[in-house]
Amino acid sequence: MKNTIGNHVSVTLFGESHGPSIGVVLDGLAPGMRVDEEYITAMLAQRRPAGALSTARREPDPFVIESGVWQGYTTGTPVCIRIPNTDTRSGDYADTRWLARPSHADYTAHQKYHGFEDYRGGGHFSGRLTAALVAAGALVMPSLVAKGIAIGTHIQRCAGVADRDFGDIAQDIAALQKLDFGALDAAAAEEMQQRILKAKAEGDSVGGVLETAVIGLEPGLGEPWFDTVEGVLAHALYAIPAVKGVEFGAGFGLADMTGSVANDAFCQTDRGIATATNHSGGVNGGITNGMPVIFRCAVRPTPTLSRPQNTIDMRTGEAAVLQSKGRHDPCIVHRARVVVDAVTALAVCDLLAGRYGTDWLGAQ
Amino acid sequence: MKNTIGNHVSVTLFGESHGPSIGVVLDGLAPGMRVDEEYITAMLAQRRPAGALSTARREPDPFVIESGVWQGYTTGTPVCIRIPNTDTRSGDYADTRWLARPSHADYTAHQKYHGFEDYRGGGHFSGRLTAALVAAGALVMPSLVAKGIAIGTHIQRCAGVADRDFGDIAQDIAALQKLDFGALDAAAAEEMQQRILKAKAEGDSVGGVLETAVIGLEPGLGEPWFDTVEGVLAHALYAIPAVKGVEFGAGFGLADMTGSVANDAFCQTDRGIATATNHSGGVNGGITNGMPVIFRCAVRPTPTLSRPQNTIDMRTGEAAVLQSKGRHDPCIVHRARVVVDAVTALAVCDLLAGRYGTDWLGAQ
Amino acid sequence: MKNTIGNHVSVTLFGESHGPSIGVVLDGLAPGMRVDEEYITAMLAQRRPAGALSTARREPDPFVIESGVWQGYTTGTPVCIRIPNTDTRSGDYADTRWLARPSHADYTAHQKYHGFEDYRGGGHFSGRLTAALVAAGALVMPSLVAKGIAIGTHIQRCAGVADRDFGDIAQDIAALQKLDFGALDAAAAEEMQQRILKAKAEGDSVGGVLETAVIGLEPGLGEPWFDTVEGVLAHALYAIPAVKGVEFGAGFGLADMTGSVANDAFCQTDRGIATATNHSGGVNGGITNGMPVIFRCAVRPTPTLSRPQNTIDMRTGEAAVLQSKGRHDPCIVHRARVVVDAVTALAVCDLLAGRYGTDWLGAQ
Amino acid sequence: MKNTIGNHVSVTLFGESHGPSIGVVLDGLAPGMRVDEEYITAMLAQRRPAGALSTARREPDPFVIESGVWQGYTTGTPVCIRIPNTDTRSGDYADTRWLARPSHADYTAHQKYHGFEDYRGGGHFSGRLTAALVAAGALVMPSLVAKGIAIGTHIQRCAGVADRDFGDIAQDIAALQKLDFGALDAAAAEEMQQRILKAKAEGDSVGGVLETAVIGLEPGLGEPWFDTVEGVLAHALYAIPAVKGVEFGAGFGLADMTGSVANDAFCQTDRGIATATNHSGGVNGGITNGMPVIFRCAVRPTPTLSRPQNTIDMRTGEAAVLQSKGRHDPCIVHRARVVVDAVTALAVCDLLAGRYGTDWLGAQ
Repeated sequence: MKNTIGNHVSVTLFGESHGPSIGVVLDGLAPGMRVDEEYITAMLAQRRPAGALSTARREPDPFVIESGVWQGYTTGTPVCIRIPNTDTRSGDYADTRWLARPSHADYTAHQKYHGFEDYRGGGHFSGRLTAALVAAGALVMPSLVAKGIAIGTHIQRCAGVADRDFGDIAQDIAALQKLDFGALDAAAAEEMQQRILKAKAEGDSVGGVLETAVIGLEPGLGEPWFDTVEGVLAHALYAIPAVKGVEFGAGFGLADMTGSVANDAFCQTDRGIATATNHSGGVNGGITNGMPVIFRCAVRPTPTLSRPQNTIDMRTGEAAVLQSKGRHDPCIVHRARVVVDAVTALAVCDLLAGRYGTDWLGAQ
Repeated sequence: MKNTIGNHVSVTLFGESHGPSIGVVLDGLAPGMRVDEEYITAMLAQRRPAGALSTARREPDPFVIESGVWQGYTTGTPVCIRIPNTDTRSGDYADTRWLARPSHADYTAHQKYHGFEDYRGGGHFSGRLTAALVAAGALVMPSLVAKGIAIGTHIQRCAGVADRDFGDIAQDIAALQKLDFGALDAAAAEEMQQRILKAKAEGDSVGGVLETAVIGLEPGLGEPWFDTVEGVLAHALYAIPAVKGVEFGAGFGLADMTGSVANDAFCQTDRGIATATNHSGGVNGGITNGMPVIFRCAVRPTPTLSRPQNTIDMRTGEAAVLQSKGRHDPCIVHRARVVVDAVTALAVCDLLAGRYGTDWLGAQ
Repeated sequence: MKNTIGNHVSVTLFGESHGPSIGVVLDGLAPGMRVDEEYITAMLAQRRPAGALSTARREPDPFVIESGVWQGYTTGTPVCIRIPNTDTRSGDYADTRWLARPSHADYTAHQKYHGFEDYRGGGHFSGRLTAALVAAGALVMPSLVAKGIAIGTHIQRCAGVADRDFGDIAQDIAALQKLDFGALDAAAAEEMQQRILKAKAEGDSVGGVLETAVIGLEPGLGEPWFDTVEGVLAHALYAIPAVKGVEFGAGFGLADMTGSVANDAFCQTDRGIATATNHSGGVNGGITNGMPVIFRCAVRPTPTLSRPQNTIDMRTGEAAVLQSKGRHDPCIVHRARVVVDAVTALAVCDLLAGRYGTDWLGAQ
Repeated sequence: MKNTIGNHVSVTLFGESHGPSIGVVLDGLAPGMRVDEEYITAMLAQRRPAGALSTARREPDPFVIESGVWQGYTTGTPVCIRIPNTDTRSGDYADTRWLARPSHADYTAHQKYHGFEDYRGGGHFSGRLTAALVAAGALVMPSLVAKGIAIGTHIQRCAGVADRDFGDIAQDIAALQKLDFGALDAAAAEEMQQRILKAKAEGDSVGGVLETAVIGLEPGLGEPWFDTVEGVLAHALYAIPAVKGVEFGAGFGLADMTGSVANDAFCQTDRGIATATNHSGGVNGGITNGMPVIFRCAVRPTPTLSRPQNTIDMRTGEAAVLQSKGRHDPCIVHRARVVVDAVTALAVCDLLAGRYGTDWLGAQ
């Protein structure tokens, strides 16, 4: 499988930035999962936030559920969600068609598809396809919540500014849902936004780190070799454009710890067996241990800049200077937050369906 | 699939630490790949290095190729490599059976398998199974080399000591093959080993970071969504026990860069199109761009310590103190190096077979 | 995977008879395959033939290629073809909602989906979804033809009337493309149609056998265990509603032969090595041997009848009589012909991509 | 996946007839399934029956469970069962190495593997590998029985002689377990065996049809498109060497029925909803309907004959005469019976695990 992920609940993405539509097919969902179209709309809106950070607010992407949902519930058959493309100005691209944008996929797509790629607006590689991912994640999220599972992501770091750590995770996840800019500390959020605007003014861009928590997972999800919780999640998360690192628990910080510091001692609590610390990020031996699953994604700065950049012409191999025109986001960290939530929700559905069977997440 | 990875070249691990055998089945290999049993033996020996760092040198694990190889070449049918278990002293485990070792898989295995797990020596979760992975990787490696692809991993960091960066990667990879302790800088290697011995003396353990380079990959490998090069590699790498983070190129370091610094400008070289820097680690949009693929794995300190540790009894949930007995490695970073190489080699075979077809890596 | 088939070229179906759209996602296609929309239209028209046998001629289903095709060629990214539903009169179904149509999927869908199924018009089980399969098959067919591969299906038997056997297969396949009713012998075709009309007049339905030939396949496709050519094709063909048997070569006829009759002697011909007979249907040990691949599908009579039928009410379990209203096809054998071609074309693409790599069927 | 089948419970075969071992890896089994090694031995013995029909009785194949079973129960981790090869006389094969045996896989293997195939004794294509399948099926069968599911296969037809139909299926399945030669009617069994001996005396071979019943399956197993019960079973069954046709219910017989005869009317019984007839073989729309799942496999006559046969030399393409030496089975229908049972048991496990989750078949 190429553009599909998931053993039990599978997700297939299709579409190009300037084609008729983008979309997603979800298969393996339980019948009887309640579908909340307003919630999908709300999550799509979080991917396109208001304010000076991004281009002027546009309405969230309208979507059509083509199949698999009836009378407000999943039917158990494949769900296709389609988002028509509008506002596509293909003419803009002709004069830069052969100039490979640095750290974009123009060159690799050209090598892979031998010139048949639809290069307009990044084609199939466009970040726009994450809208379909968000819609898919938003479709399943309420069923996870109904099972006591919550997922939330905050901007742990952006443009060199750090957010506070997760505290009471359930409360923080609830709070994050209402934030337009997903940093838990208001002052940090303000400072991050100032630096994003500064980068924008300089024709530059900034990156950051997103930190995610998943709570309410029973122990026992995941497999020892290959389909570890870490491997399954990382595989999915790396599909998000701009993610270049994924770490669990203390992650790279573990490299400099001693075992006596790093180890998470088991202990008895009033909620059952737990660990005193959570340096392992809720996963031991690839399997959930009942503690919150915690991970972080490194998000590179947006590669599209309004500054001139050195590159080559893909036809001739000759040096060229690329001067991008039009609107560009100086940062996508805050927009990627909800994409990480969505990808995580879909991966969690897959793990649950494998363990508990097809019907578990539904009304039965 | 649970204990299997790979779409085209698939790898299935089986075995428990104290069962009759561990092993691996490789399917989808080209017919006509030359198999070098001495090289397999050598790579297995690197997983069990000599010296004071580990237990006294033992011979490398003897292996049996049960199928799929004939007269020195792969036949194109599934290859099963089996490594019999010997030297298993099961009696050692009975009195600590119910004490969950912190940050080990005892508790999660118990939750997942409801008490039917073979807990002896970590069972299916034992690091011993990486011997089968190493044998599998060593079986395919010469065919990659014959295609101009080289893979090498150095200990970028261990016990707080940093190695030098990769320089001439081809030379460094060649040098690493001959090193017992895989740090490129001799002084750093010495210091790392001293600190490992110190940790051992204190009943403690240390971790580190492994950095890997893959050179010789053509542009165009990988898929835009989900089966990205990063996703495919990370999925496989997280199977290695103790890996808790994977990052590509500048990885988490990208989070604090601006786009104008992070972007890798394309340029023309005497070897064709390249990029002036390689912060992207050889991958744009999930697809190889022809630059070296560079990634790092965070390796946690070995969770088994000779110090007493707090835990619980899994039967009763009551607090307990675990006092491990016997030999324990104070560090596995240097041993995991060859496991990372092997896993990488197998994932690269999978990517190549998907793009170029079944026969490409063989003699045809 | 549930509603997906194919290891290398994958096909995912979505949609319900009375939902907004049905459709298909094809992934793993080579870039640079020429797409002929007129040919797709023509194959869709063959699924809805003219004449008294079926309902009055309607135009072929309009389709939209949402992604993966640009400027007349596949791009190499997922192709979504969508066919909007129109002419859906949902009101018709309310009063028979709980009466399980015999040999239809109403009862099994109800058991599987716990009442959340969209039952209108058969929902996801509707034969209408084969239109999406036909469109997908028609999209890839010209690329197979360009590689010298031809696929054709004739009505070997219908309503008790036998067609002549395949003769010169290439010529017969060419002739079949132009036939509205796909029997090779004109007199047999006429007799079959008379019997279909007779069944219709009696409120009854008839079945038949479809025989397919694939020519131009190189020896060496398929795998010895599990992904045999027979297994891969049969898996796909059984997705066609009404197919209840699949046999290769002499098939069930082999059961009564002796080995000395059944065996296909190898011989040298001016076109290379061949076999003197083809009782094996072009497949030995699961692998193509270069002879035409020949198979037959048993097609049951359409289960929808205008006669009253005994059944039960799914709510109460009580006996009931079902009196279907509206138009019903007294036979689908002739319509299923092009569906078998399409499914075969897709399965062949999958086998080819596995062996020769992703790009093989494209312009490269 | 090539030599692997199953989405949830996966089966991977390895081995060559004259290599060190053949074997199978089962993954995705529930923890806590009771393993009965005597039963495995008994089923392996049925694959190698006594008497004049086959070569002189040899002991059943000794097997080693290398992993995944401990203290008599599955652990939930991959089960590897290995059967060492003994009694391999490779020298016999050298002088016929290049003569492609008609209707065997020699030629197709040579084309597929480019001469690297281990041709001795059929290599990976040898019917001997079905011993590993039988062992795997026998490992899971008692857990199916514990859930009220029974599987049995009788020789519906052999050498032109017909067995009686299934009567009381549960009783017939019980009876079949005790039969050495699996025809339900004793006189038919005797006649079949006489004809097999006659064929043997003539240096020839005979084929037949195996009919299988699966009882105790709940309604709702299977998927509408592609992973239909028929498609999943047929895919697996075609892996059995010599199977060239698979049909469900009335199968090809449906082609000549009218719908009013073929349809299975639903009715209420004291055991719940059932159908008055079972022409659909227990499957509607690809999904089980609670009636017995009934299917038949066409088994070709053994292609190995002691008569001289015309063929070619694969090196030169020149005509040659093949004179096989040594022992050959004049019929494998009676031996394949238990292989069909095993393959069916494994496919049923896969369907169950997909629907009810990983643990369902275990002790939990």
